[in-house]
Amino acid sequence: MKQKNYNITESQSLFNKAKEVIPGGIFGHYKYSVRDSGPKFFSRAKDAHFWDVDDNEYVDLICAYGPMILGYNHPLIDQAARTQYDLGNTVSLASPVMIELAETLVDMVSAADWALFGKNGGDSTTLAVMIARAATGREKVIKIRDGYHGVTAWMQEGDDRPGILPSDGDHVLAIDWNDVNAFEAAIAAHADEIACFISTPYDHPVFRDNSLPADGYWNQIETLCRKHDIVLIVDDVRAGFRINLSGSNVAYGFTPDLICFGKAMANGYPISALVGSDALKQAAEDVYYTGTQFFNAVPMAAAKATLLELQRVDAAKQMTEFGNKLNEGLVKVANAHGYDLVVSGIPAMPYYRLHNVERKTHFAWIDECVKRGVYMVGYHNHFVSTAHTEKDIINICDAAAEAFSVLGSADQYRIESS
Amino acid sequence: MKQKNYNITESQSLFNKAKEVIPGGIFGHYKYSVRDSGPKFFSRAKDAHFWDVDDNEYVDLICAYGPMILGYNHPLIDQAARTQYDLGNTVSLASPVMIELAETLVDMVSAADWALFGKNGGDSTTLAVMIARAATGREKVIKIRDGYHGVTAWMQEGDDRPGILPSDGDHVLAIDWNDVNAFEAAIAAHADEIACFISTPYDHPVFRDNSLPADGYWNQIETLCRKHDIVLIVDDVRAGFRINLSGSNVAYGFTPDLICFGKAMANGYPISALVGSDALKQAAEDVYYTGTQFFNAVPMAAAKATLLELQRVDAAKQMTEFGNKLNEGLVKVANAHGYDLVVSGIPAMPYYRLHNVERKTHFAWIDECVKRGVYMVGYHNHFVSTAHTEKDIINICDAAAEAFSVLGSADQYRIESS
Repeated sequence: MKQKNYNITESQSLFNKAKEVIPGGIFGHYKYSVRDSGPKFFSRAKDAHFWDVDDNEYVDLICAYGPMILGYNHPLIDQAARTQYDLGNTVSLASPVMIELAETLVDMVSAADWALFGKNGGDSTTLAVMIARAATGREKVIKIRDGYHGVTAWMQEGDDRPGILPSDGDHVLAIDWNDVNAFEAAIAAHADEIACFISTPYDHPVFRDNSLPADGYWNQIETLCRKHDIVLIVDDVRAGFRINLSGSNVAYGFTPDLICFGKAMANGYPISALVGSDALKQAAEDVYYTGTQFFNAVPMAAAKATLLELQRVDAAKQMTEFGNKLNEGLVKVANAHGYDLVVSGIPAMPYYRLHNVERKTHFAWIDECVKRGVYMVGYHNHFVSTAHTEKDIINICDAAAEAFSVLGSADQYRIESS
Repeated sequence: MKQKNYNITESQSLFNKAKEVIPGGIFGHYKYSVRDSGPKFFSRAKDAHFWDVDDNEYVDLICAYGPMILGYNHPLIDQAARTQYDLGNTVSLASPVMIELAETLVDMVSAADWALFGKNGGDSTTLAVMIARAATGREKVIKIRDGYHGVTAWMQEGDDRPGILPSDGDHVLAIDWNDVNAFEAAIAAHADEIACFISTPYDHPVFRDNSLPADGYWNQIETLCRKHDIVLIVDDVRAGFRINLSGSNVAYGFTPDLICFGKAMANGYPISALVGSDALKQAAEDVYYTGTQFFNAVPMAAAKATLLELQRVDAAKQMTEFGNKLNEGLVKVANAHGYDLVVSGIPAMPYYRLHNVERKTHFAWIDECVKRGVYMVGYHNHFVSTAHTEKDIINICDAAAEAFSVLGSADQYRIESS
C-alpha cells in the first residue's frame, strides 16, 4: 500500500478549478481535510480504503467523519438500499420501512421508546432542544464549552463567528466538561429556567485532548436533571454505535431522555434520528420540525440494514478491540522514535496528539502519514470501522514509523508544553 | 386507473403500528398527507404514479412535495446515481462530481457565480441569511408574512409554536406580499439594520390563494435593495425549475444576490444548494455551515444528471403547458357540476380552492379525488412533473368529476365567502 512517487497533481488541479465555482473550493468540515501536501478529492472507495483522484490509496482513519462504520460500499447495506430504490425513494407518502427502522431503534437502544428522523445530525440536536423547550416551557440550554452539536446558530459558540449574532447564544450556558459544580451553579443561577442539558457522552472537541466522563459524573448529572426537571439530551451523533450499540450512555451507566443519532447509523446513506422516552412523546409530536428530504425511504432501508449488521457482528466490541491494538501500535512506534504520542477518547475514535511539540510538528507528522497512505486529520478525533484489518494496523504503523523518520530526532521539536 | 373496491386497510394497520414507535405516526409536513379516508404509506412508485400499501394506484399531484420532477425512478438519473454509488458516496474527501455540479448550476442559473451544497432546503435558506449577515454586518431579516423558508427557529412565525421562543423572531420583520410600501416602511424604521430580504419568487403559502408578483413589484424591490445595500435572497426551493430553468427570478425580470434551491434539483435524491454572486463569495467562504452528509457524492451525481435532463427536455415549459391544460380541465369539470374552482400560483404548482364553500367541503372533494386515484392535498399547492401525461389529465378530470358527483349539488354547500 506504500505510495510509489506520491503526487497530488490532479487533486491540486481540481482544487483550483473548484475554487472558481465553490467558495473556498471545499467548504464546511471538509475544509479540515485540505492540506497543501495532501489529497483533495476521492475517486473511489472500498472497505476501509479510498483512492484519491491521483490514484493514491489510503487506509481511512476518518471514515467520512464517522458515517462509514461497516466499510465503504458494504454489499449488504447497498443491497438493502437498492431494493428500496427499485420500489421508490422520496414519494408523497412515507414508506413502511420508516416504521421498521423506528422499531429497530426502539429494540436496540435501551433509552428509546420512539424515533423521529432527519438528515443532518444538527436536525436531531435542534429538534431535541425544541422538544425539551416544548415539554418544560423553559428557554435555557446548558451545554459543554466547545461541545459541537452542529451549526444551528445557538450552538455556534464564540465571538466574531461570521453570520452568527451575539444574541444567538442568549439562552445557552456553557460549562466545562466533567464539572458537576459548574452544572449545579448554572442551575442555582437560573432556577426553573433550564429546559435541558445537551452533551456528547464524553468530551470530543477539536484541538484538545478528548476526555472520558469522570467516575460518577453522569450519575450526578442524571440525578440533578431528575431533581430539577431538566431534560437530559445525549448527542450521540459522533460516538453513537462505536461505544455501545444500545446507546453510549449504557457504557456510562445512565439514562438520558433523548438521544441524537446520525453519522454511522446508515453506513454513509444520509439520515439522522432522534430517539426518546415515552414521557416526551407528546412534546415530540407537538413540535413542528421537518425537511423535504426527511422521508427518503432509501436511507431508512440502509439504516435498518446497518443497525442489524452492527448487532450481528458485535461492532462496537470489534472496533474497540481494533482501536486498542491500533493505538498500542502507534504509541510504540512513536516511543521507538523518541516521540510521545498521547491517545485520548474512546478506542474506536482515537484522538492523537504528539506531546510537547508545536502544532506544526504534529501536523507535519500527520502530513507524512497521509503521504504514505494513511488518511488522518490533525487535532480531530479519528474513526475506525469493522472493515479495518490487522494488515491495516501493520501498514498504518509502518507509515507512522516512516513519517517519524522523515521528521527526524524528536529533540529538535521539544517544547515545554503543547 | 379507477380504484376497484378502494380500501386502506393496510395503511390504517401500519399507521396504528407507526404510532407506537413514532410520535404521531407520521410527522413533519407529511402529516398534511394524513386523512382518515386516505392512504398513509406507499409501496412503490414509477413515473408520475405511486401505489399505496393496499395496492391502490394514484396519479401523483404532490410529487413528494416537489422533489419528483422527471418521474419516479427515472432511469437516466438512477443510472447516474448508481455509477457514482459504485465509486463511493460519503467518503472522507469530496468527489469531483461536486465541482461538476457547481459548474452545471453556474452555467444554468443566470444569477449564479458559485454554489454551496446542503441537504435540506432549510440548510440553504439558513446559510443564505448567515452570509447576508456576515457580508453586511447587520442583523435584521425582512420576510413575507406566512412565507415558509424551513423550520429554522427564526423562520417559524406565530405565537405558541411549541419549542419556539418569543425571542427567536426578534430580528425578523414580516411584511405582506406584493406590498412595496410595507417594504419601504420597514427600511425606514430600521435604517442600516436590514441584512437581507428573503422571499419566494411568488407567494405560495398554505391555506391561502397563491399570488404572483404584481407588475413592477420585483423591480421596485430590487431597486430598494440596491439602494440600501440589502442582500436580496430568493427562496426558490419550492418553485425552482418549475417556472424557469435559469432561476424563477428570470421569469420576473430581476436579479437576486442569492438563490436557494432544493427539492426538485436531484429528482428525489437528497440535496440542496445555495448559489450566489461573486460579490458575496468571500462572505460565503467565511461562514461556517456544514453537515455530516453534505458531501454525499451520489445526490450530487443525481443532481447534475437531473439539471442536464431538465434542460434537454425544456422541462419548465413542458410542465407549464401541462399545468395549464390540467387546470383548464379541472375548472371546466367544476363548472359543469356547479362548483367554482379557483386556481392560483404558477401552472406547474397549482393551488386549488373551491370558492364560497367551507373548508370541510373542499377537503371532502379532495378526499373523494384521492379515493379515485388522484393524489392531492387540501390547501397546499400541488406539483406536476414532466412524467405526467395527457392520459393523466383525462383520468384526473374523470376522478374530479366523480368526486363532485358524490358531493352532489354545489348549492347545499354555498356560503357567502370562503
